Amino acid sequence: MAKNNKNAISPTRQEDYNEWYQQVIMAADLAENSDVRGCMVIKPWGFALWENIQKDLDKRFKETGHENAYFPLLIPLKFFEKEAEHVDGFAKECAVVTHHRLEENSEGGLDPAGKLEEPLVVRPTSETIIGASFAKWVNSYRDLPLLINQWANVLRWEMRTRLFLRSAEFLWQEGHTCHATSEEAVDETLQMLQIYKDFSQEFLAVPVIHGEKTASERFPGAVKTYSIEAMMQDGKALQAGTSHFLGQNFAKSSNIKYMTEENKEEYVWTTSWGVSTRLIGALIMTHSDDDGLRLPPAIAPQQIIIIPVIPKDDVKEKVMNYINDIVEKLKTLRYREERLRVKVDRTDKRGGEKTWYWVKKGVPVRLEIGPRDVDDNKICLTRRDKAPKDKQFLNRDDCLASLPDILTEIQSNLFAQAKKYSTEHSKKVNTEEEFLNFFKHTSEQGIQGGFALTHWCGKEECETYYKDQQLTIRNIPLQHDNESGQCIRCGGESKQRVVFARSY
Amino acid sequence: MAKNNKNAISPTRQEDYNEWYQQVIMAADLAENSDVRGCMVIKPWGFALWENIQKDLDKRFKETGHENAYFPLLIPLKFFEKEAEHVDGFAKECAVVTHHRLEENSEGGLDPAGKLEEPLVVRPTSETIIGASFAKWVNSYRDLPLLINQWANVLRWEMRTRLFLRSAEFLWQEGHTCHATSEEAVDETLQMLQIYKDFSQEFLAVPVIHGEKTASERFPGAVKTYSIEAMMQDGKALQAGTSHFLGQNFAKSSNIKYMTEENKEEYVWTTSWGVSTRLIGALIMTHSDDDGLRLPPAIAPQQIIIIPVIPKDDVKEKVMNYINDIVEKLKTLRYREERLRVKVDRTDKRGGEKTWYWVKKGVPVRLEIGPRDVDDNKICLTRRDKAPKDKQFLNRDDCLASLPDILTEIQSNLFAQAKKYSTEHSKKVNTEEEFLNFFKHTSEQGIQGGFALTHWCGKEECETYYKDQQLTIRNIPLQHDNESGQCIRCGGESKQRVVFARSY
Repeated sequence: MAKNNKNAISPTRQEDYNEWYQQVIMAADLAENSDVRGCMVIKPWGFALWENIQKDLDKRFKETGHENAYFPLLIPLKFFEKEAEHVDGFAKECAVVTHHRLEENSEGGLDPAGKLEEPLVVRPTSETIIGASFAKWVNSYRDLPLLINQWANVLRWEMRTRLFLRSAEFLWQEGHTCHATSEEAVDETLQMLQIYKDFSQEFLAVPVIHGEKTASERFPGAVKTYSIEAMMQDGKALQAGTSHFLGQNFAKSSNIKYMTEENKEEYVWTTSWGVSTRLIGALIMTHSDDDGLRLPPAIAPQQIIIIPVIPKDDVKEKVMNYINDIVEKLKTLRYREERLRVKVDRTDKRGGEKTWYWVKKGVPVRLEIGPRDVDDNKICLTRRDKAPKDKQFLNRDDCLASLPDILTEIQSNLFAQAKKYSTEHSKKVNTEEEFLNFFKHTSEQGIQGGFALTHWCGKEECETYYKDQQLTIRNIPLQHDNESGQCIRCGGESKQRVVFARSY
Repeated sequence: MAKNNKNAISPTRQEDYNEWYQQVIMAADLAENSDVRGCMVIKPWGFALWENIQKDLDKRFKETGHENAYFPLLIPLKFFEKEAEHVDGFAKECAVVTHHRLEENSEGGLDPAGKLEEPLVVRPTSETIIGASFAKWVNSYRDLPLLINQWANVLRWEMRTRLFLRSAEFLWQEGHTCHATSEEAVDETLQMLQIYKDFSQEFLAVPVIHGEKTASERFPGAVKTYSIEAMMQDGKALQAGTSHFLGQNFAKSSNIKYMTEENKEEYVWTTSWGVSTRLIGALIMTHSDDDGLRLPPAIAPQQIIIIPVIPKDDVKEKVMNYINDIVEKLKTLRYREERLRVKVDRTDKRGGEKTWYWVKKGVPVRLEIGPRDVDDNKICLTRRDKAPKDKQFLNRDDCLASLPDILTEIQSNLFAQAKKYSTEHSKKVNTEEEFLNFFKHTSEQGIQGGFALTHWCGKEECETYYKDQQLTIRNIPLQHDNESGQCIRCGGESKQRVVFARSY
């Protein structure tokens, strides 16, 4: 595999991007489809990515005063019905529990039995069930702000599913907060959006545009929805996280009231915000190449893989002693305030097989060590962010000492590569013709379009006009040039450009 | 509250143990019942306990070579039916998903719609769904052992529920492993039992007896089930964790086969093992007193609470400066290789209110600091494992330097107190009369019985004879005196004593 300039992943991105994505996942052993419709199995290498995401994000949440809690998986139908827009948004994709036991039927199989008086919905999101608790927890202004997060599984009966990007069951975190004023709730909404942006860029090395969603793309029941949007290597946008200002809509439907300092009863203002295992999809599609996954060191389950090259049995002890000594030395080093994550591949696979195994798994740094390296006191280092043949033969101690810096470099290099890609495939367009041409034009990398930075008047009809071409407004960026112009559709006034793209 | 020798919790343990348990949970703000039958809400202070349990246990699992993964919440009925004993064990308490959307009915309410062709069971445990993946993952002896763990929510439709001890939905971890030989699988089963025992004793400071369950108490489908059993302060046993040797039962029903080195196809041998949020129930009932929760420092979300005592506004700055300086100093100290978890209570509650708030939450060490302490360069230290009036006025620097040792001392003291309690309420009994008297006798602490170490012949009829008195064999201890004797019921031969008790 991958010999003679062939790539480890077939098809390549250019040949068939969607199939390439599936093959990268398979080659890195991240996840697989289960026998349950739309539900995936997250395998150890994939789950380790999620664990690292959780750890870093959780720290950011706690540093900003949030606490974790846990609420029921099942939501009584009557709770769910309380917020009209909310239930409309989710009713079509809810798994419903109607029975509480199984009973043998006449053919010896099992049938559901013990019908429930009221059906229960498996949570697609938890605003309503958490609202019922918040109504008890919040009494006075002293109880505010209430800043809660939950790490949980949720279920949405999606018709078309794809590993990590869209699955019936997925893992996520959902933040839910209550505030005394509208301003505080808006500040929280924007603070969490900023945390998502920082996390995405610093930790996943995935550049994103943060901005407000248009009215038609709001979370069901929200007053305002914000998102971070990343560009994948096929030019499509992927919504990687959302933060919602819910106004008093859910406070009213869940009856969350508090007594102000002046002894007046008021409804609270709430927010909710979430990211999910979809982030892993964004990570894969942003960084991977035709040899498979490429992982930024911050999230890599193993940052450094050491591959013993043992041509004959009689050099095994020599090589392994040299490697064991290196492993000991590496224990004293730190990257991002933590020990380096180092693994020695002790399997009995052949050398080349081992190498490609770890290339496809995306490990940032490979150290290959054979008997000659031991004799010369050297290490052969290869970086996953560079070409496979770009090997460095380094003096052992220099190599080890430089590893934390090399990881730092790889992290920023992957971000820079992704940023360059998204910049190259973003374009300010000023007329409808330019706009349509942009999405027809095929770039050198073989992709059509990307992000079109376009003036839009704010009217829904001008937004939805391009929906049949799958061109939608991803968001209205918070950072922009204050450059006014005319809507490409109707010529109406526009104060800033929005991001149009095809999307996942 | 708690003035004039009254206690913070009413009723006391002696007055009404069950109600005391509920009140301790409420006073510490750990959890509450939800509006969903049998499902609890785990509040931030309670969830922080679970997070600390997860962190420590997860480390132990990874150190012994296990990796985390995630499998679907929903199990197709046909998977579930494969292992006959297994389905018999769980069929009576399964939540069943039968529909995948909601539809408006004629009264404007919602009804389940979109009936599924095959109902799906919300996992009560995951042997069958994980088995389906393992059948794909295991091919050759090189793939073994396969050592997987999952942190997840599970659902069992229990009729009588109690916070943490028995709830319809609960959080747990479930380990699932495959091995080439029966011996290796048995070793794994016992290794995980030992990890549970060590964790329980070292981290939760909860003494346990580890041993084998009798045949009638085995996990449905297991060949052998082992447990750890802890004694609560009402003398009842609480099963705090189980580890199962599953033989080839699940390998056969899920068709998990591998090719041996000799190229023969064989079924693997599997194990499963789990602990749940029930551990929090064990923790509460082992350590709490009539003033509320007492937390071992290892698991305490905050180990040290600093309470400013500010009689007049004009001393506030002085006291807070002194405290801020202390907080800085504490950042340099470590307990169990981590920073001390310290919080300053900056609320505007009165001094006494603050103190009792943290007493009831179980924080191991309280530092109370008023203007006089600042003048004298002192700190007033109170330990939650000692009487509330047992205050120490210490020189500031001595106090700070000794804090890690004090936490170590509290951790061992809580274990020693619990161990003493369980020893005092355990008794070797040799005749049926002694046995029945033991469980009728009321101790000074007002509890009846405890653990009766009893000879038993091994016959089910002698085990079940006492079931109407709720006296059951908790387990057959792995550590024992090799002391033979006669079954108290039938006089038959017995090679070792077993643990009889009432249980949760």
